[in-house]
Amino acid sequence: MTTDDPTPVYFLSDSTGITAETLGNTLLTQFPANNFDRNTIPFITTVEQARSVVNVIDGLAATGLQPIVFSTAVSSDIRQTLGTCQGIIVDLIGTHVGQLEQALGTHASGEPGRAHGLGNAARYQSRMTAVEYAMEHDDGQSLRALEKAQIILVAPSRCGKTPTTMYLALQHGIFAANFPLVDEDFEHEGLPKPLTPFVSKCFGLTTNPLRLSQIRAERRRDSSYASLRQCGFELRGAERLYEAHGIPYLNSATVSVEEMAATILQKMRFKH
Amino acid sequence: MTTDDPTPVYFLSDSTGITAETLGNTLLTQFPANNFDRNTIPFITTVEQARSVVNVIDGLAATGLQPIVFSTAVSSDIRQTLGTCQGIIVDLIGTHVGQLEQALGTHASGEPGRAHGLGNAARYQSRMTAVEYAMEHDDGQSLRALEKAQIILVAPSRCGKTPTTMYLALQHGIFAANFPLVDEDFEHEGLPKPLTPFVSKCFGLTTNPLRLSQIRAERRRDSSYASLRQCGFELRGAERLYEAHGIPYLNSATVSVEEMAATILQKMRFKH
Repeated sequence: MTTDDPTPVYFLSDSTGITAETLGNTLLTQFPANNFDRNTIPFITTVEQARSVVNVIDGLAATGLQPIVFSTAVSSDIRQTLGTCQGIIVDLIGTHVGQLEQALGTHASGEPGRAHGLGNAARYQSRMTAVEYAMEHDDGQSLRALEKAQIILVAPSRCGKTPTTMYLALQHGIFAANFPLVDEDFEHEGLPKPLTPFVSKCFGLTTNPLRLSQIRAERRRDSSYASLRQCGFELRGAERLYEAHGIPYLNSATVSVEEMAATILQKMRFKH
Repeated sequence: MTTDDPTPVYFLSDSTGITAETLGNTLLTQFPANNFDRNTIPFITTVEQARSVVNVIDGLAATGLQPIVFSTAVSSDIRQTLGTCQGIIVDLIGTHVGQLEQALGTHASGEPGRAHGLGNAARYQSRMTAVEYAMEHDDGQSLRALEKAQIILVAPSRCGKTPTTMYLALQHGIFAANFPLVDEDFEHEGLPKPLTPFVSKCFGLTTNPLRLSQIRAERRRDSSYASLRQCGFELRGAERLYEAHGIPYLNSATVSVEEMAATILQKMRFKH
């Protein structure tokens, strides 16, 4: 090995591995100078499987590398087996379960978590229904059922409405529709007619003209649609509309869909 | 308070709060007999904000409740402020950072994590492009660009193709298309023509006839489309097709989109 070899990182789980990846990656962002080679191994549900994972990690350790292992395995026999490996083990469940047992005065069940399983069937079904709803109401496709929306994202084309809508539906089970603002909507002070009854559900997106122009040019290069002038015109018009009607809004230029969703839920005071 | 009062739970973060929610909920699933009242407070970015959160929690503690606080705050001054509250604090960053500092022989940056921020701009952009791609290729809408797909989900109507496709795109940046199997596809042994060149990218979904019949009946009650007989016919035909062409598949009846996505990535040997 040389010192330039990336550090092998394993996210291990007896379920999907999403939790291990999520927190593991948050922790790794604290070490931006280091190189990591990330591997996710989900669904480790038997001690035999755990043993073969340990063999892989021990094989790497034998070459002089120091693997880092984030584990969210819940069953104690699998945790014990993984715990024998020659890596640095960050046990994201075991470390905290004891503290909670003490606080709650009960014992942990030791059953695999399924935090990302079906869980509450009704809640899961409502997330799936929300995804369907979001598909059907993308880009103002169907205005009939706007009254069913919990949130209506409003913005000019290519400001990030669609992925944010999808994220709100898939992650949070929110019925989210979206509505594109077009040139005619900036010709008068009023809200576009389909939105008038639902102003309290509206949330606006804006972005920076240059960024919008770049994104639009990927679709239609050298079009007036992608021109800086047109983008600036639409964004100024949109922001004026949001201000005039008290519609909360945010600039999507430097934030992710996850951050937008969290901000929207916070500003709309959704408890999820 | 009575002993039936749910335990207040706070997910605190200087970013979106997703990580705190995810691991916190995994830990709470270990205590299925307890009732929890969950609250997420994201974007705690100043010490003043942290102080007012501490006041809320201390107010609850003063009534005799014992709040549980999961925190992923990264900046040390905010962590210290939150650490003064009268709840049980599960510090998901602080607990593990020291261990990693030692393993890596460097110091943590102490910068807020933004695990759910834009991060690597190219990777983020590819996730957004993947969402667009998934929207455009939902339900076999556009067959032209199937060669761009990394995964093609194949199944009869209402087996869970759309939300799984969307999840693969949004969470993992995978270019996922989906293709509905219909009656004609079961009349011969061959694959549907548009799929023939791409069999190695195909992944099949199936489910239980009864479950499919229930889901279809929500859309079209008393239709032959929703009949148990028709559902059984399509699912048997689909499974025969998968087997004949060596297409890996899974039963979506009792697993979530998150679990399906993890299984698909694992079976298709995607490293993500």
